[in-house]
This record gives sequence, C-alpha cells and structure tokens, in this order.
Amino acid sequence: MPVHAFAQLCDHVREVSLLTSTESILSWDQETYMPAKALAFRARQMSWLSGKAHALATGRMMQKLLHQAQSARLQDPKSTANLNVLTEEYERNAKIPNRLIMEESEFTAHAKHAWMEARKSSDFSLFAPHLEKLLNIARRKAELWGYADEPYDALLHTYERGTRTREVSSLFAKLKPELTQIASKAVERGKAIKPNLLRGNYPIAKQQQLNAEIAASIGFDFEGGRIDTTAHPFCTTLGPRDIRLTTRYDLKDFTSSLFGVLHEAGHGLYEQGLPEQDFGLPSGRACSLGIHESQSRLWENHVGRSRAFWEKWLPRTAEIFPNLRKIDLDDFMAAINLSEYSFIRVEADEATYDLHILLRFEIERRMVRGDLAIKDIPEAWNALFAELFGMVPPDAAKGCLQDIHWSMGGLGYFATYTLGNLNAAQLFATARKHRNIATAIDRADYAPLLGWLRENVHSHGGAPLPGEIMQRATSKATDARHHLRHLRERFVG
Amino acid sequence: MPVHAFAQLCDHVREVSLLTSTESILSWDQETYMPAKALAFRARQMSWLSGKAHALATGRMMQKLLHQAQSARLQDPKSTANLNVLTEEYERNAKIPNRLIMEESEFTAHAKHAWMEARKSSDFSLFAPHLEKLLNIARRKAELWGYADEPYDALLHTYERGTRTREVSSLFAKLKPELTQIASKAVERGKAIKPNLLRGNYPIAKQQQLNAEIAASIGFDFEGGRIDTTAHPFCTTLGPRDIRLTTRYDLKDFTSSLFGVLHEAGHGLYEQGLPEQDFGLPSGRACSLGIHESQSRLWENHVGRSRAFWEKWLPRTAEIFPNLRKIDLDDFMAAINLSEYSFIRVEADEATYDLHILLRFEIERRMVRGDLAIKDIPEAWNALFAELFGMVPPDAAKGCLQDIHWSMGGLGYFATYTLGNLNAAQLFATARKHRNIATAIDRADYAPLLGWLRENVHSHGGAPLPGEIMQRATSKATDARHHLRHLRERFVG
Repeated sequence: MPVHAFAQLCDHVREVSLLTSTESILSWDQETYMPAKALAFRARQMSWLSGKAHALATGRMMQKLLHQAQSARLQDPKSTANLNVLTEEYERNAKIPNRLIMEESEFTAHAKHAWMEARKSSDFSLFAPHLEKLLNIARRKAELWGYADEPYDALLHTYERGTRTREVSSLFAKLKPELTQIASKAVERGKAIKPNLLRGNYPIAKQQQLNAEIAASIGFDFEGGRIDTTAHPFCTTLGPRDIRLTTRYDLKDFTSSLFGVLHEAGHGLYEQGLPEQDFGLPSGRACSLGIHESQSRLWENHVGRSRAFWEKWLPRTAEIFPNLRKIDLDDFMAAINLSEYSFIRVEADEATYDLHILLRFEIERRMVRGDLAIKDIPEAWNALFAELFGMVPPDAAKGCLQDIHWSMGGLGYFATYTLGNLNAAQLFATARKHRNIATAIDRADYAPLLGWLRENVHSHGGAPLPGEIMQRATSKATDARHHLRHLRERFVG
Repeated sequence: MPVHAFAQLCDHVREVSLLTSTESILSWDQETYMPAKALAFRARQMSWLSGKAHALATGRMMQKLLHQAQSARLQDPKSTANLNVLTEEYERNAKIPNRLIMEESEFTAHAKHAWMEARKSSDFSLFAPHLEKLLNIARRKAELWGYADEPYDALLHTYERGTRTREVSSLFAKLKPELTQIASKAVERGKAIKPNLLRGNYPIAKQQQLNAEIAASIGFDFEGGRIDTTAHPFCTTLGPRDIRLTTRYDLKDFTSSLFGVLHEAGHGLYEQGLPEQDFGLPSGRACSLGIHESQSRLWENHVGRSRAFWEKWLPRTAEIFPNLRKIDLDDFMAAINLSEYSFIRVEADEATYDLHILLRFEIERRMVRGDLAIKDIPEAWNALFAELFGMVPPDAAKGCLQDIHWSMGGLGYFATYTLGNLNAAQLFATARKHRNIATAIDRADYAPLLGWLRENVHSHGGAPLPGEIMQRATSKATDARHHLRHLRERFVG
C-alpha cells in the first residue's frame, strides 16, 4: 500500500503540528495576557509539549513511517518534495536528544522573563547567565547537527534552509559600503526635514480602528486572525486559520503601531495564503524567515510607505485624527520616510535598518564561534555600533539588550531580516512589471499584488528552498540591486 | 521504596495535570479571543490533549504506579486520602474508552459554537442534533461508570462526589414550597421599589476600574490572575497561579459586570487559596462544584449585596460614576436587591434564583432517564417555567437555550448551584459567629473572613468529600435553614 504509507506519515506529522501549534498558543498567551506568577508552571507546560512533539517527530513510529513512505516511490512531485523535506528534518531532529529540547523550552520561558527585567533596568548582568545557557545549548545543537564550515551554519539553516554563513558574510561585506553610503546621505537629507511633524495625541482605540481598517483593506482576514498588544510586535500561527498579530502603541505617534501592523499583517497574509489543507506538512508552511520577512517588509515599506498608499489613506487618517487635517501630502511623506541614525532596530528607518543587521550578524557569529565571551558583548556591541553609526548607545537597553531573539534561543536569526529586505524589493519590482498590478498599485488597490504573491510565493509553501522560491517568482536568485535601487530612489534620489 | 512509589505516582498525576490545564488554556482562548475560523483546528488540538490526558490517567504506567503505591502502606493521612481519591478516579476513568473522551472533546468544541448560533437566532433546532450527541455520550458514560439508583447519579457524581440524585431530589422537593413562597413575597415587595434607579451610562473602562478595585480589595491576586470579557462569565484555572475570571458589560447597568466579577472572584479566591504545592493532586484542587459555588455566592451575595459593603463602596462607586452621587444608600440597597420573576438564570435575583435550578434539575433528570426526547425539551421547559414563575419564556433563547452547560457536555451540573447557595449561607453564618470576623465584616473588612475560609475550606483541597468539608467547617452537613433564613431576612423580613 504505497500511497497509504505516505498518508500515514502525513497523519503522524500533522499530529506533531497539533502539539507545536498548541505550544504556540501558550507562548502567545504568555506574551499577551498571562499574569506574572504563572510563569514557572507555564514553562513546564511548554516544555512538556516541546518534548512530546520532539519525541513524536523522532520516535520509532516516525522512523518506521518514513521508511515505508520512502520505499513507496511516490509519483507526484508535491509528495516527493514533502517526503524529502520530512526526511531531512527527521535526520536533523533525531540528532538532538529529547532532554535538550525540553531543557531549552523551559529555559527560554524563564530567559524571556529575565530579559524583560534586564532590559527594564538596563542591566546586562541580569540576562547574562541566561544567555550563557542558551548559547551553550545553541552550540551543542550545532555540533550535534553538524555543519559545513562553521557552527553558525547549522543555526542559520534553522531559519534559512540551505544558506551558508560565508554566503551571508560575503553578501554583507559587499553591501556594507553601499549601505553605509546610502544611510549617510539619507541621514544628511533627513536633517532638512521638519522633525515631530506628526506628533499629537492619538488614543489607542482610534489607532486600533485605523490599523484594523488598513489591515483588512490589504487582505488580512480577521475571521482567521486578530491583533493584540505586546511589548514586542510579532506574528504567530496558532492554527491554519488562526493568525495572531501584535503591535504596540505610542500615544504621541500613530505611525509606530500602524507600520507595526502593516509589517505583521504582511507576515499574516503569507500565513493566511499557505495551502490550508497541507497545514503541518512542509508544503503547508512558510518557506524560510528570509521569505517571510520579504512579505512583511514588502507591505510595510514598498506598499505602506509609498505615496500612492497615502494618497488614498491620508484623508481617512485625518478623519480619524483631526490634527492631521491640514497636513500636506508631501510633508507627510517626508515625515514617514525621515531617516536618522538611531539605537533601536525595530524603530529604525529603511535607510539605516540593514546596518543594525550587519552588526548583529557579526556579533552572533563571534559568539557562536567562541570568539566573544558573554560578558564582553556590551562592549563589542558598542564598538561596532560606533563604527557603523558614529555614536554609542547610552545604555544596554538601547544596545545589546534591545532584541528579544536571544532570550528565545533564536541565535542565527537576524541575517534573515536583510535577506527579507532584498527579497521584498526583488519581488515587488517583479510584480510591478505586470501592467495591471502596477496600475492597481498606483491607485492603492493591492488585490492584484496580493494575488500575484499568493500564486508565486504563498501557495508554494515550504517544501522548496528559499532560493527556489525566488528563482521561480523572479527568475533570479536573491539579488541586492533591487533593494539598493529602492533605497537610493527613496532616500538619495 | 514505599514513599518513592507514592512520589512517582504523584509525578505521573501531575504530568496529567499539565495536559488538562493546557486544554483549559485552549478553552479559555476559545471563549475570549479566538477568531471564528479557528474552531475546527482548535477542536482537534483539544481533542488530542483530552485523549492524551485520559490515556496517561488510565494507562499501564498509571496502573502500575497505583499498585505500587497501594502496597506501600502510607502512614500520613494526606497521602492516604490522595491515594484513595486517585484510586477511585482511576477506576472510574478506566471504564471510559479513550475514543469516547476524544470524541466528546471534539464534539463539545463544535457544540459550543452551534449553541451560540442557535441562541443568537433563538432556534432550538440548530442545537438539537448536538445536544442529542452529547446526551448520548453522557448516558453511555453513566452506563459505563455504573450507578446506584439511576444514571443521573453517575453524572452528578462528576460534579458533586458522593451525592445521590434522590438526596437532591428530596431536598429540592422540601425546598420547593418554601422557595416558591419566598419568591412570591419578594417579587410582591419588589413591585413597590422604584425600577431602573441605577440606569445610566457606564463606560466599560470605568466599570473595569471599579471591578478590579473591588476584586483586589476582597483579596483576589492579579499577579496570579486576570479578568477578561466573554458572553458568559466564568472562572477557570490555567495553572496554580493563573486564575482567569471573565465578565460581561452592560453599558446601562454597572451592577451586571460588578456582581459577575464578585461571583467569579469568589471562585477565584478559592482557587488561589488551594495548596499550590499540591497542584494536580486531589489535595490541591477544589472539592466539588457545590463547595466551589458556595464561595462565589458567599462573596457575590452575602458580602457583595450587604449594606456594610456598600456603606464602604458606594462613595467610591459614585466617584467613578458621578450619576450615582445623589443616590441614597437605602434606595441603592433596595435597587440591588430588587426581586422579580425573570427568564434568565444568570440575571436572576437571589430570591428567585433557586427556582431556575429546580427547573433544570427536573428537566435534566428526565432527559437522562430517557423520559424526555430532545425535541420536546422546549415545551417541557416552558410548561415547568409557567408552573414555577407564572409566565412563559417568549422564545428559546430566553428559555431552554440560555445556558452554556449542555453544550459543554455538562449534564448533571445545575443542582450544584443550589447546593452552593445552601453551603454559602451556612459557611457565612458559621464564620460570623466569630466576633472578630463579624465586627470586621460590619466595617467591610473581609480579611478575617477570607482567612477563615482559607483555613476551613480552601486549604483542605479536594481529597475530602463535600460533606466532610461542611462537617469540619460548620460541624454540620449541608442544611437548608441558613439559606432560607437569609432569604427571608433579606427579601421578606
């Protein structure tokens, strides 16, 4: 029963996804609503789920079902692709002992909390012992997985399958002079723009109303998702029709939550566009973080910071926030695309954003290599920051404590943000070559653009490699020139 | 290693509680925030967790650990009591096939949704097929469990261990004439009270502020709990320090959410007072629903609707809601204790509340016996309602579709509300016999009362039977006269 064998394997893998998605629910709740004292028990609940999911994904039954499916010789390409990815993942997962997975899950719940406290008091020493533990786990995992050139390869593979550290490194080395130059010119130009033009009083309920209207208008389905409030915006998938976005509110600046929502809704549109019936299988999940981030950055920056978008939305925005009624569209565009050197990555403008990534990639690579001790991170961070931005963070909260990633064990993650930026520009430029898409975009109608993304990116799921997705959609591998051209046009021009 | 054997059993049982509490998180999310389209997958996640928890609680490992612990001959009474309850539960659980548990879990997720839709359109036929399924499951479980007199015994035991249907039935038969008389006099008196005295505009945020202040003032710990909004208020435990209350808001009447919060906070105080280190064991859980409801009703009615409480809280309430500034305390007390016949149980005043329970107990008992077909429920409900209240519900939404319980498979549950009323009055009267508690209550200081409840009810957990809790705390079994005296004093006087 060859087909039956593969179907059984799929059922088993879908069962694992019931557990991993349940863990996502617990994690979402931890970030959004969980009361403080619930932490310790929550960590144990999550650890149990991780352990059980890993045990199911690597146990004898999985092994048996994989072997049966492999000897079945599947005919259709989708099943074959799924089986190949599942086999590769099984081999990778089976190298990690279950105890390590459960330990990591429990550690990260506590580390996240410690990181929040450390950041609040800007005291790196509160977080350092947790980071030490998580770095050790990451390095142990890298050794168990194995790698081609250096341990960082193995970690990077978790987020960007098939991409090597040295490829990223040489790409970033090439980008660095150009990005530095663009940033410097953009910041220079930014000095001429009137600051604080959009400062005002923006009640949360009204921000929420505008954000929801805009998210719905670009296609986010609120019957299969929602927006909540967290200190650190994210998008997470709790089930095939349950995509949760989060944002945070600045009462003086509505653009902070709005661009946050556009960004996360970009992720959400990708998740909502994946083949629902394949949920739990490689073909039903996102391809990589570099592809995921291409979707969020495309909607946030290429759509959301464009003139056509605000030609349509500024009048409505001024209805909701009357203080904007007298504002000129040119001034508004200048204000939302104002570039300046700043300390916080998630608040950085497009022109300076990638410099933050170059820094993190460098720091992480040294950490994972063992060339940078935990205690020396703040100093190394500040030194590199000074080199790239010409200024030094005033404290650790504005320096090496600002990002949540390490506290979640997410080492090897950051590079995907810049890969996402490159992919976003390339996909957007390719889509715009279709006249109907371009004319629709010019009148702020994004249905054809979303249709193109659904067809060329979303519907292919995660069985292909990221490079294959880009190749199919744009006839080229990831290529930096679209992003650089976009930045020059917008910021140097 | 006798002690070791029992410790191993406890570890195993605590592992089961990781799963059941995780299912509670998923259920809480379903009620509070889950988007509509997520339902089907959520049902599968919950079904998996139920099935796994049941498998762990009834599998070979559990059997082996129980046997080992039983032959270890424990010395301390707490361990012995825990072992006895675990043995009894194991025997009960092992009679139910895993498939039935998983089916029931998945059915109820869908049935809850169907019930909401049916209630919205007041169309019993939308819910009837779901209820048919759940009634069949309940009856199958009753047959598998076995019972002394009638199948309803087995269902009642789920919520009120050791209590028989005929005991409840004879108690209710005795109560009925007295309750009917009290209700009739209370309603008559209510006609003299000015209606709609408290109607006004009460913004949700301000209601939330008052509710939180009051819940905190009676001892609810917001670092180990929170309040959210749902269509149907409830209290659920997601972990030993994670107690979630919900309420709903009437923009014209702040007392609806406030008494809802006092009620649910009463449940929450009980949960927060259970021995944390025993979470997952019988000694770390609530004893029964009749005891649980005694706590909620005590805080809602004996505390929250008392004159001393409002002597303290009316000034603060009028600060938050200025329309109440001129109101007289006597008029306010009359307004919040106004009695009238009404259709909806959860909105019923104290004097008429138990009549709603008598009705449900009668209907359910007939359903479970097989004497009442699903299709005939609306008619039977209305006939009995007319007999007790002298009026007929205008539609099913205000009749047999009003309660969530059946949609969750909760047949056998309702009687515990009236048992809770009786226990509440008895516990409150007993506590008040202590001079220091009584004088504190008279100045709206409830710390000594809570201390007494912690010591005499909460700290004993769920290993004793409900009757044993009442006996220990009040030196008597549950006795209706306290409740009847309380109602007469408040409503007939």
